[in-house]
Amino acid sequence: MGVPMSADNPWKTLSSKVVYRNPWISVREDQVMRPDGSPGIYGVVETKVATGVVALTDDSQVWLVGQYRYPLQEYSWEIIEGGAEHGEDPFVAIQRELEEEAGLRAAEWNQLGDEFHLSNCFSSERGMLYLARGLTAVPSRPDCTEVLQLKCVPMGQALSMVDSGEIKDSMSIVGLLRAERFLKGNATLPTRRLR
Amino acid sequence: MGVPMSADNPWKTLSSKVVYRNPWISVREDQVMRPDGSPGIYGVVETKVATGVVALTDDSQVWLVGQYRYPLQEYSWEIIEGGAEHGEDPFVAIQRELEEEAGLRAAEWNQLGDEFHLSNCFSSERGMLYLARGLTAVPSRPDCTEVLQLKCVPMGQALSMVDSGEIKDSMSIVGLLRAERFLKGNATLPTRRLR
Repeated sequence: MGVPMSADNPWKTLSSKVVYRNPWISVREDQVMRPDGSPGIYGVVETKVATGVVALTDDSQVWLVGQYRYPLQEYSWEIIEGGAEHGEDPFVAIQRELEEEAGLRAAEWNQLGDEFHLSNCFSSERGMLYLARGLTAVPSRPDCTEVLQLKCVPMGQALSMVDSGEIKDSMSIVGLLRAERFLKGNATLPTRRLR
Repeated sequence: MGVPMSADNPWKTLSSKVVYRNPWISVREDQVMRPDGSPGIYGVVETKVATGVVALTDDSQVWLVGQYRYPLQEYSWEIIEGGAEHGEDPFVAIQRELEEEAGLRAAEWNQLGDEFHLSNCFSSERGMLYLARGLTAVPSRPDCTEVLQLKCVPMGQALSMVDSGEIKDSMSIVGLLRAERFLKGNATLPTRRLR
């Protein structure tokens, strides 16, 4: 522990091959030299950038989406989310998701903090969160694989759902807790005004 | 949107096969019938339960671990984390990680909220978070693949690192924001005393 260490990459990638790919994820296995110099493998899951939005009504209610999450085999209440297509600006992606999932457009957008890493032991997935206000309705066009329920709950109730574990999705947890910090006037959270 | 929907699983799994496996993750591809009745596939990444602990000193400093995260190709400051072995109690796993990574034992443990889902679009990974207090030093036995830096920062500074994006890891973000809510006396966060 006493040895000074740099932030340089202590891993060496010797070779890399894709071992599984579908339209949503790609898994590669790298042959690596570990930080201690021993040889090994590293399996990395690559996927789209995850985007999510805390869509807040004028009377401080949050739009939540309910859907069955196949990988967990559980029903899940979440903020509005979607993946950015390859090379797509996450802000463009989330505006599309807000329209498609909730049938909403927003007049005012803030970026809610910087990007974060959803599961950094085995995946390179990045998440970007937004706050949307000044909401107006547009016709909704739900994605064919999605069977969604929508509801509005007061911000305080959404936070209670986060605390109690009723909301289990990491994007929603981080999004709602960041929105709370922003709305309470926390100074250190970057919340760039986008529109 | 107007059709009443139940929380029952609207997906049907027709068959399932493992398409990739290493000691840390397993990827399966299921043949499915989607909620709208159309056929398709679903790739699901399975992994260990992620555990993390906000280890707090008597003067309200948090232990942070710095390491290079290979999947992101970035250096990352995080709370102390580790995976629970198959069938292992996450609380047992995190006590081991606290000893191995930071050389610490804790006299007082709280569960910090319920389990949550790190990346529910393509993985079944679950996270469990804890708060540890009453820390004492034990000999450290770092894992062979890990090259770690350790530091203590005041809780307020750790939260600023979460807000600013210097801390990008979802387990650390949720853990530190939940610890802050708990320490500020939030009533709706379940924080079962474990020891």
